[in-house]
Amino acid sequence: MDKNSSTHSLSHQRLLYCPSLPAKLRDLSSILCEKRQEATHPLDPRIKTLFPHLASLPLSRLISSKTPSAHPPFKVGVVFSGGPAPGGHNVIAGLFDALQQISPSSELIGFLNGPGGVLVNAFKPLTKVLIDQFRSQGGFDLLSSGREKIETPEQFASAAKTVLEHKLNALIIIGGDDSNTNAAVLAEYFLSKKISTQVIGIPKTIDGDLQAEEIEISFGFDTACKTYAELIGNIAKDALSSKKYYHFIKLMGRSASHVTLECALLTQPNLAFISEEKKELQQIVDEIVSLVMRREKAGKEYGVILIPEGLIESMKETDLPEKFRAQFIQKDAHGNIQVSQIETERLLIYLVKEELKQRGYKGKFHGQPHFLGYEGRCAMPSNFDANYTYALGFTAALAVRDGLTGVIAAVRHLRSSAEYWEPAFASIVHLLHFEIRNGKEQPVIQKTLVDLKGGPFLRFASQRKSWQIEDLYLQPGPIQFFGDKELIDKGPLNLSK
Amino acid sequence: MDKNSSTHSLSHQRLLYCPSLPAKLRDLSSILCEKRQEATHPLDPRIKTLFPHLASLPLSRLISSKTPSAHPPFKVGVVFSGGPAPGGHNVIAGLFDALQQISPSSELIGFLNGPGGVLVNAFKPLTKVLIDQFRSQGGFDLLSSGREKIETPEQFASAAKTVLEHKLNALIIIGGDDSNTNAAVLAEYFLSKKISTQVIGIPKTIDGDLQAEEIEISFGFDTACKTYAELIGNIAKDALSSKKYYHFIKLMGRSASHVTLECALLTQPNLAFISEEKKELQQIVDEIVSLVMRREKAGKEYGVILIPEGLIESMKETDLPEKFRAQFIQKDAHGNIQVSQIETERLLIYLVKEELKQRGYKGKFHGQPHFLGYEGRCAMPSNFDANYTYALGFTAALAVRDGLTGVIAAVRHLRSSAEYWEPAFASIVHLLHFEIRNGKEQPVIQKTLVDLKGGPFLRFASQRKSWQIEDLYLQPGPIQFFGDKELIDKGPLNLSK
Repeated sequence: MDKNSSTHSLSHQRLLYCPSLPAKLRDLSSILCEKRQEATHPLDPRIKTLFPHLASLPLSRLISSKTPSAHPPFKVGVVFSGGPAPGGHNVIAGLFDALQQISPSSELIGFLNGPGGVLVNAFKPLTKVLIDQFRSQGGFDLLSSGREKIETPEQFASAAKTVLEHKLNALIIIGGDDSNTNAAVLAEYFLSKKISTQVIGIPKTIDGDLQAEEIEISFGFDTACKTYAELIGNIAKDALSSKKYYHFIKLMGRSASHVTLECALLTQPNLAFISEEKKELQQIVDEIVSLVMRREKAGKEYGVILIPEGLIESMKETDLPEKFRAQFIQKDAHGNIQVSQIETERLLIYLVKEELKQRGYKGKFHGQPHFLGYEGRCAMPSNFDANYTYALGFTAALAVRDGLTGVIAAVRHLRSSAEYWEPAFASIVHLLHFEIRNGKEQPVIQKTLVDLKGGPFLRFASQRKSWQIEDLYLQPGPIQFFGDKELIDKGPLNLSK
Repeated sequence: MDKNSSTHSLSHQRLLYCPSLPAKLRDLSSILCEKRQEATHPLDPRIKTLFPHLASLPLSRLISSKTPSAHPPFKVGVVFSGGPAPGGHNVIAGLFDALQQISPSSELIGFLNGPGGVLVNAFKPLTKVLIDQFRSQGGFDLLSSGREKIETPEQFASAAKTVLEHKLNALIIIGGDDSNTNAAVLAEYFLSKKISTQVIGIPKTIDGDLQAEEIEISFGFDTACKTYAELIGNIAKDALSSKKYYHFIKLMGRSASHVTLECALLTQPNLAFISEEKKELQQIVDEIVSLVMRREKAGKEYGVILIPEGLIESMKETDLPEKFRAQFIQKDAHGNIQVSQIETERLLIYLVKEELKQRGYKGKFHGQPHFLGYEGRCAMPSNFDANYTYALGFTAALAVRDGLTGVIAAVRHLRSSAEYWEPAFASIVHLLHFEIRNGKEQPVIQKTLVDLKGGPFLRFASQRKSWQIEDLYLQPGPIQFFGDKELIDKGPLNLSK
């Protein structure tokens, strides 16, 4: 890259972005974690049995401090866990800057390629020079991520060896629901072994399914949805300009339909399915067929339909008409059906076409499948995500300084301007419930699904009918970083609080 | 949409964008089409026979005029032809504003749903109030487009009826190479029938394959490529962050690989194929397999590969190993093979996997197919395309005023800032050559393919090797409309002049 193109590149300009830091986080000596015993919800006795040390820890809240005190330098490790989400690099930048503010000789190291890097002690020191090359950039490529988990006794021992070797005060795990569950298990293990390394989670996932009282949304959700909405808006304009295709757009998001719901509100497609409404496959096909036939009567042989990734995940093989099982169902190495790998967008086009034929539909129907996922997970973070993740990094540093473990760093009041955001902590054991996983009951953080009585869904439900025949498509356009603050700093519509 | 969200929406803010008008187009009374007889290239005698009237017309160039004259009002029709491209609405806005400047009582009407709208006289009057809702917006939805052609004697008669009914001074056809060929045929027909309606083309196509001495690039190419490059950059970051997949990204662009070349220069993938290099399928597979094996040795089991839409269009069915012909080849209603509908990205993943197996490759290889096309054709036009199309509209108005027909309105010196751009006209008959189409030799505008001796390709060829093993991915990010002029006003790299 020549110097000129580099200076005028957006990527370069984003390096210079100064995230808006909440007022409460500007001077970390003015804020303190106060430990208080009482929990709002009593813990499940089984959780107490499985996490005796974490369960006995007092909960924390942040209060003002009038007596700033000096701190020794901290040594902290950080790791990305699972799929990437926009803003990850700013968590690290915030953590670094805050640790420097707390004690300038603090050290930060990053483990490589996900939790597996902790196990084999693969790491790199995170210096200012290095971090300055990743501020407000997309991706997780400063460290890369991975999906290996720390869950067996041998893995716990390896992790312990690594943190002891580095004399880490804390390990920060940037991950989704499962990674944060694992963070609690690891925190409990360290406490049980009298290893002083704290374990602190950061709520990451574009799926938006990691929410709690303190966690209004996971980071990355905003940018990913805005990137998908940019494309859906463009595709909808194309539908309207060319009048030729029904675009079936599948969106990432696993079981939860937060991404689809957010994108639907941002773009107003003709149809958007929400898995949480639990419709049968035949009902879904019928709804699309009815839409196609009604639109054809209105002279419209095109449209836009949003499909959440998890729409048919509970479907059984027998729900599928026999003759195209072979075409759409992949089998794994053991010959098992991989329902999750069905390309729902293509399957639905096929089924709708068949059903239209059966009903004697005479109009045109051309389906165009799309899958939006990898296009958004590593996008350059929106100002919202850049600010939010930077504040999360600062909040995590507070947790390090004040000795918290088994907590997720959080930032609240995200509907307000960043100035008024407030750092907070969620105790992970208080988020756990029991689920059957691999045939065994396990304590996990419950995925937050779309609340069918919540504001975003109700808003969608009240509008969606009007989107079906009239074309009220919105084109949000590409994420902007400069200009009107109201436009560029706006967060997602779907915030739980 | 509530008032608040509307005012702060990007779409609203783009409505207020004032395109940068070239200095030469600001005062249209200071510029004049001078007709001069001499053509640089003599016309093919067969063209002279087919287009006797157009062939005898003098060529034009724009010169300064010192004697402004008053003009009667003009009545002009405009139509979109073929696939949409970002900027179409600004052609119409520029045309409208320029006609108002030339003579304030001028009228503009838009034909609906493509050239078919001319045949059946389906139109809407284009008022300032209406046009003001579409300035610098994506899509062609003000009028919608279509692919019907005006080519049979009956169609010519219908078109004549329509333009005579409206007493149109001119019909502006916004289209690609074929639509502009048709514009010349229609212009010749009108001349032969002594119908005074001029026919003027506008060079549109995201494919970038409509180029000539006067036409440095077609409009829409810049925005579409920047939109695809945004996504490729995001996907490349994901490859690097997750280290899990080879992303096979197919890009729209028909036979020519301009889009792929432009995107490759903007994002630096590990491999990008250029159809014009005319590689055999086996060679393509071998190159990918070799890349995968060499990267695996470097500890990299992921990558990014760009595939132009036309890569295997000359492939014969027999080039495909028998066992997956059924899987990848679709047949049309007549049982003919539709090679163009092969999903090249999926075919290549399949073939590469097979070949790796054959060579005893022990590493991981997971291919992830993508097709980018509809995501970019209706994106909000970049400043470059918004400015360029607005200037094209002004140039077309000059052609109307000065009585030109059978020309394409063009704007030159696009490498300079918009201030210095220059309006120009290309005589369509001078762009025609003969090609076999549907078994018949026909005069058509020659598609401009990637020039393997041209600057953009040579730059790519000199760098591509270094992109293979090292990951030099660039992330251009989303198109920006506000901020640093150097960033937001930059046009495409691939300009023929």
